[in-house]
Amino acid sequence: MTQLLRVQNFCVSSDGIAAGEDQSLEHPFGRAVDPGKLFAWAGATASWPNRTDPGGSRGLDDYFTRDFSCNIGAEIMGRNKFGPQRGPWRDHEWRGWWGDEPPFHTPVFVMTHHERPSFTLSDTTFHFVGGDPAEVLARAREAAGGKDVRLGGGVTTIRRFLEAGLVDTMHVAVAPVKLGSGLRLWGSPEELLDRYHLDVVPSSSGVIHHLFWRK
Amino acid sequence: MTQLLRVQNFCVSSDGIAAGEDQSLEHPFGRAVDPGKLFAWAGATASWPNRTDPGGSRGLDDYFTRDFSCNIGAEIMGRNKFGPQRGPWRDHEWRGWWGDEPPFHTPVFVMTHHERPSFTLSDTTFHFVGGDPAEVLARAREAAGGKDVRLGGGVTTIRRFLEAGLVDTMHVAVAPVKLGSGLRLWGSPEELLDRYHLDVVPSSSGVIHHLFWRK
Repeated sequence: MTQLLRVQNFCVSSDGIAAGEDQSLEHPFGRAVDPGKLFAWAGATASWPNRTDPGGSRGLDDYFTRDFSCNIGAEIMGRNKFGPQRGPWRDHEWRGWWGDEPPFHTPVFVMTHHERPSFTLSDTTFHFVGGDPAEVLARAREAAGGKDVRLGGGVTTIRRFLEAGLVDTMHVAVAPVKLGSGLRLWGSPEELLDRYHLDVVPSSSGVIHHLFWRK
Repeated sequence: MTQLLRVQNFCVSSDGIAAGEDQSLEHPFGRAVDPGKLFAWAGATASWPNRTDPGGSRGLDDYFTRDFSCNIGAEIMGRNKFGPQRGPWRDHEWRGWWGDEPPFHTPVFVMTHHERPSFTLSDTTFHFVGGDPAEVLARAREAAGGKDVRLGGGVTTIRRFLEAGLVDTMHVAVAPVKLGSGLRLWGSPEELLDRYHLDVVPSSSGVIHHLFWRK
């Protein structure tokens, strides 16, 4: 079986923006971006990993949220997905945004130049790793035990892996909201068509799912 | 977690026909129905369980074929999906259409009034069970170890479970081919709208995915 690097459920605005530039503890996606608007489609599904109550839709959008953990053995994320800090770690108190039960349930490789010991929350272990995308992917593949690796974002990290030619499949949900400024995944999805096939799938929820896979 | 009964990747013609009436060893779907026409969309995907070569598409259709085994702990099938025999078993030589490596990888409950000992091929064990749909579902749920149960078909079996109100979600791929006569799932998908939500999702492959979930 091929061991893929997969981007899943990555949400951008209609103008391609995934996050604001002014990330903080209070505004994980930056002050200009309300993540509720980008993620509303996912939160409405039965399989949304953060769902705590029963219910939720089980139509098209639910296929994407329940695919989140299917055959995934590790995640790679950028440091800015892990937390709002910059530069050397002052201490090790920050353990991510996700509380005591992070939704990953696998090893997670946080890309950073600043060393920090690994730690475990529930069944998720966070490792802090330097190196370029290819090196980090090699480590994540080894940890994934034959399963696929999820590239969790943020947007800067995804762009680095796309530029390095390492992404095998990518699901981007384009929300019907325009943001104007912020950290941009693309000017247009067509920028990737030289290297990827693309299925464009409108959902009844209003988002347009974009499914890329390598040519 | 809710333990669902799910119909997945069930293929019908544009006029709702899933199989011919004259099933035989040579024509598992009946003489009038070429399964290649109904299943072509699935066979083209990377995750088609019967795929033996690399390649295949990883767009929308692939989400459905790779969802086939995600969080499934047991399958229920009608006897006519298992084989072309009718009436009491003459012997136990027939072990299904799928060779030594059936694509199920879980316990499979074959509904039949005619007793037969269980047997195992690779990691799939076939059990032969009487009883009505609710009784068979109870046994399959217990065997599924907390995971969902797949309702594998054929069309007569799916209709029985729908009539008993036991199906939680159902994915039907409607192929762009008209068959005229045979075993019919429905006159129109609208027949289910009193009990189910429906997402209708056209694919670039030409099939139209119909996703039902309980109201």
